[in-house]
This record gives sequence, structure tokens and C-alpha cells, in this order.
Amino acid sequence: MKKWRFLGIDDSFNEKKCCLVGCVTCDGYVEGFMYAEIEVDGLDATEKVIKMIKRSKFKDQLRCIFLPGLTFGGFNIVDIQRVCNDIGIPVIVVMRRKPNMAEFMSAIENLNDADVRKSIIERAGKIYKVKSMYIQIAGLSLEEGEKYLKAATIKGNMPEAVRIAHLVASAIIHGESRGKA
Amino acid sequence: MKKWRFLGIDDSFNEKKCCLVGCVTCDGYVEGFMYAEIEVDGLDATEKVIKMIKRSKFKDQLRCIFLPGLTFGGFNIVDIQRVCNDIGIPVIVVMRRKPNMAEFMSAIENLNDADVRKSIIERAGKIYKVKSMYIQIAGLSLEEGEKYLKAATIKGNMPEAVRIAHLVASAIIHGESRGKA
Repeated sequence: MKKWRFLGIDDSFNEKKCCLVGCVTCDGYVEGFMYAEIEVDGLDATEKVIKMIKRSKFKDQLRCIFLPGLTFGGFNIVDIQRVCNDIGIPVIVVMRRKPNMAEFMSAIENLNDADVRKSIIERAGKIYKVKSMYIQIAGLSLEEGEKYLKAATIKGNMPEAVRIAHLVASAIIHGESRGKA
Repeated sequence: MKKWRFLGIDDSFNEKKCCLVGCVTCDGYVEGFMYAEIEVDGLDATEKVIKMIKRSKFKDQLRCIFLPGLTFGGFNIVDIQRVCNDIGIPVIVVMRRKPNMAEFMSAIENLNDADVRKSIIERAGKIYKVKSMYIQIAGLSLEEGEKYLKAATIKGNMPEAVRIAHLVASAIIHGESRGKA
């Protein structure tokens, strides 16, 4: 094994709050967690993700950051290009299904700052199919992305750090973990 | 490996709140989390731990419950005999150091319901030395306790579920995990 450290981030939310949980793994071993709160349907996800990672003791050791989608806390969208540029760490979005962009863009029309949200989504770039998953990448090649995705995954198709971040976030909001990332 | 499921619980708190995090592992693999909040220096830890486990989908599969001490959220003390009796699952308290009982009892004198707290501590029973650790047990023999402790531990001396519960709880309170259970 290569001793690569990965950060996986997932969220969970209710009407009161949305929590973001980051999990750091190294060869599948859980090394630590990060925690932040964002606004439901807000516009602060990018900034909070950057802040959470910048203050982390793991920052300089992270090979890449995995997200299970672009949106957190409803339609609070993470700008993966900005995260990558600001922190200097590549970002990979890993999704089980190909997002229905027409439906997505139409839902955004009902929110404040629809244009800002749309431009963040457009900046996220091309969606690639990698085995049964769909990915978007920032700051690395598709080949590197596939290599990191493979290295970060133990069981199933989701990076271990994202899987565990999901379990933690859903437990904080619902009292016990539920579903999967 | 034996496919034994263990629950590890740890807490973290500040002036505003104390969170209890439960982590379920099976052969070191993280399967899920539980979450509850208790009062700092309160008397609700036992009841909240019981409730958290009773409502859990993992309840019937847990081989035993590990705690890194009797006290959570300051001096909110868990009655391990009552947890074991109510839920029907053995409890093992795993400590790095032997608690200084005289100091502990004297600190409790300054709190409300000092007698209630003292009697919970006394009910927790004998402290055994197991390798470099100190343990208290409820609902199982010392021999079984040693067997489970060994099976639940991957690196170091603390059961993996407690180690991870600690990382999560401290991240929720401090923004990033710190220290160790």
C-alpha cells in the first residue's frame, strides 16, 4: 500500500442545521475527522469546506479530497475548482448516478442567486464514467483520478472516507447512521 | 476473524453541550454511528446511553459495549451495571490509567447529588489490570472481557470503536479531532 491520505466529506441536514463531516483515512485506517456547519440552501459550502481543510493538521498530507456530489445542505453547491485552487489539493466528485442536469438547473431556478449556483455547477466541468460510478475532477488528470478512486475504496464503490463521513453526518442529524453516501 | 460487532462510546464537551458518539465496528470495519447529547455534570448519561442503544438497529448484534471511562460530560457517570441489565449486553470500561478514587470522590463532593454519583461509581465494581490497561466489567467474566478487548483492538490498546468514537466526538466539539480516547 502507498500510505496515501484521503479526505472524504459528506453532509446531513434537517430544518435546523446542516453538518459537514470530513473523514481522513490512510490505507483505509481512520485517522481523524473534521466538522463544520453550513446553511441549508445557502451559498457558504465552498468557503466552509476551504476553511475546514485550511485549519486542519492533515492539510499538507492529503493526496485528494472526495465529495459524493456537488451539493450539500440542499442546494449549497461546492465550487470544486475554487477549493482545488485555494488549497492546492485535487478534488474528485464521486456519484452513483449521473445527475440529471436539466432537472437540477430547473430546481435551482426557484432559489436566490440561481445564476451564481449555475455557474458553480458549470465550472465543475465534465462528468466522466469510471466503472459503475460518475466522477468530476479538479486539479488532476482522469487517469490520476481513477487511480486515487481505486486506492481509496475498500468495499463497494465509494471511497472509504466518504462512506464513513456519511455515516457520521447522518448519525449526528438522525441519532443513528442511515443510508449510504 | 469472528465477525463480532462492538460498540464504543466516547464524549466531548464544551460549555454549551456534551455529545456522546457511539461507533459500531465489526472486525475493525466501521459499520455505523450513534449520537446523543447529555448534560455537562448532569445525571442523564446512563439513561441516554440506554436509549441510544435500545433504538439502534445494531442492538441485537452487539457482543459488548466499550467505554473509555465511567464519566462523560464532566461528572455525568454511566451506571454500567444498569446499562448491562437494561439492555442485556455486557459492558467493559477500558482505561489507560488507574483512576485515583480518593481524588475522584473528593471532586464529586462539590457537585449536586454527590451520593448518587458515588453509589454509581461503587456499583461499577473492581478494577482489573489487563496488560497495560485497567478495566471494569459488567455482565461477563474477566476472561471473556480480555478476549473481547483483544478482538476489538487493532492498533494500540484502545478498542477501535472507542478510538473512532473519540475522534468523531472531539471533531464535533472542536472542529477537528484531537487527542486520543
